[in-house]
Amino acid sequence: MPLPERQLIAQLRRKLRSRSRAVALSLGDDCAILRLPHDDDALVTTDFSLEGVHFRRDWQSPECIGHRCLARGLSDIAAMGGRPIAAFLSLALPSDCSQKWVDRFFAGLLKLARRQRVVLAGGDTAQSLSGVLADIVVVGRVERGTALLRSGAKKGDQIHVTGKLGESAAALRLLSAGKIKRRDVFPEPRIAVGEWLRKNRIASTAIDVSDGLSTDLTNICQESGVGAVIEAEAIPVHPSAKRDGPRAPSTGHVALDLALHGGEDYELLFIAPPSRRVPRRIAGVKITRIGEIVRGKSVKIVQEGKESVLRSRGWQHFRS
Amino acid sequence: MPLPERQLIAQLRRKLRSRSRAVALSLGDDCAILRLPHDDDALVTTDFSLEGVHFRRDWQSPECIGHRCLARGLSDIAAMGGRPIAAFLSLALPSDCSQKWVDRFFAGLLKLARRQRVVLAGGDTAQSLSGVLADIVVVGRVERGTALLRSGAKKGDQIHVTGKLGESAAALRLLSAGKIKRRDVFPEPRIAVGEWLRKNRIASTAIDVSDGLSTDLTNICQESGVGAVIEAEAIPVHPSAKRDGPRAPSTGHVALDLALHGGEDYELLFIAPPSRRVPRRIAGVKITRIGEIVRGKSVKIVQEGKESVLRSRGWQHFRS
Repeated sequence: MPLPERQLIAQLRRKLRSRSRAVALSLGDDCAILRLPHDDDALVTTDFSLEGVHFRRDWQSPECIGHRCLARGLSDIAAMGGRPIAAFLSLALPSDCSQKWVDRFFAGLLKLARRQRVVLAGGDTAQSLSGVLADIVVVGRVERGTALLRSGAKKGDQIHVTGKLGESAAALRLLSAGKIKRRDVFPEPRIAVGEWLRKNRIASTAIDVSDGLSTDLTNICQESGVGAVIEAEAIPVHPSAKRDGPRAPSTGHVALDLALHGGEDYELLFIAPPSRRVPRRIAGVKITRIGEIVRGKSVKIVQEGKESVLRSRGWQHFRS
Repeated sequence: MPLPERQLIAQLRRKLRSRSRAVALSLGDDCAILRLPHDDDALVTTDFSLEGVHFRRDWQSPECIGHRCLARGLSDIAAMGGRPIAAFLSLALPSDCSQKWVDRFFAGLLKLARRQRVVLAGGDTAQSLSGVLADIVVVGRVERGTALLRSGAKKGDQIHVTGKLGESAAALRLLSAGKIKRRDVFPEPRIAVGEWLRKNRIASTAIDVSDGLSTDLTNICQESGVGAVIEAEAIPVHPSAKRDGPRAPSTGHVALDLALHGGEDYELLFIAPPSRRVPRRIAGVKITRIGEIVRGKSVKIVQEGKESVLRSRGWQHFRS
């Protein structure tokens, strides 16, 4: 049942209002007012979630789409070692979008927001002429000058990754091939891990694995002016990616390709000086050492004793 | 000539980077880092500009669309009496969008940004399957607890408006009727006026005229729990709206209807206690007293000696 825009706006405003007491001092107004603690820097990130580009309504549940919409922003805050404080959602809905779909989208988004103690503090609404269009803004905070950057990696530093990689890409591969009709993947942004790494000064550098390990590691190397060598056997491949077995162009192995180039895992890739002891688990999440920062500019992978250049094969958002 | 997404992203990143030194401490990273002065509150606002909903590429120049995209956000900061510090642009482009169009869009947006001393500090890029999709986020600042809200209006307070109303609506009317092919309107967000009103404690309440005077005044009355009476003859109607003369359903007068209900003027509507002396001009902008806050809940208009209820006939974004 299509909803008139006015009704939708009122509905969103009620939803926004109900969760707004913690940090947003104002909601009926033109802007949200946020009060940050003294001596904190503000972190700001903005991420699109566009139907047909980042998700498909026939492939994922509304709850999953809502969850992933917010997870994209939260993961950026996690990568800087920050604490998210407020989210802002711009949401444009087409006339074929039902009230039930919108309710379930919000249910997914707000469930994650509650778990990560983030307030949905504002946003914008509009009619969309084609597809559901969402843009999430997350504002976070971090003690002044302590944010984890992409530019701190040095020769000899160790490369680590949280959790397992390739689950989102494995689902997407099956969906694209028509082997399954629907698949929900709910990546959990690694907020607690990022904060722990920053507060304990373990990581010199961090990024979230949103575009794929090969691309995100290349970004770190470019920003830091270094190279890297990772070990294929060390990459923590998600079980759902492993099911596919060998035969991939880049590494001869589908599972490894999904983990290296898949993207949208929202795990953290971080670099720690060799003097720092990195625990096996942080905030309940498994940590895996996958390689080392080296001199030079290239990112290489060692597989079955042979070293080859790992090309950045960044995430190409799927198309409808 | 369509641009591949990767090239566009690189291009946007360069543009973002070149203007980022003032407040954004970090740009190659997952988030922008903003450092606000101690004792300031942060203001955050987010506004869509969607092709076919908020603009049309065949009706407006790319420079005008870029200008208006940023103006929407800046105007919200002005309404709170704040100073904008950074903008974030999420921009999704369809394959039929040329490099030249994008360059000219940015030229319009960045010209306004420079004039209002706002840094374009980040954003997101994506491919769009249909139309140009932009979402602008503006972060501003204001001394703690001093932001102008919508909820401060009291009985006896005087209602004022900056500049003239109805220019955007008059252009839209001619475009919709096919009487003109293209028309650029460049509303200037009233940042300096908003700041002056707040710092000199002249206004108790403010809003920007984005949805149309009738809707925005109704919003103030609802948030403040008051009513209002405005005088038709006092409304400052823009010359381009005046050309049309009489014959409108609401007031019997097209020009007045455009000024009352048109929207997208980005002037400020503000309320001042009777004890405050409001200058005729603030920061070079003409100020006009148009009415008074009264007890009750309804918004009324006096025209040729007769009082009638002024219904909120909010801005309906145009459709393609």
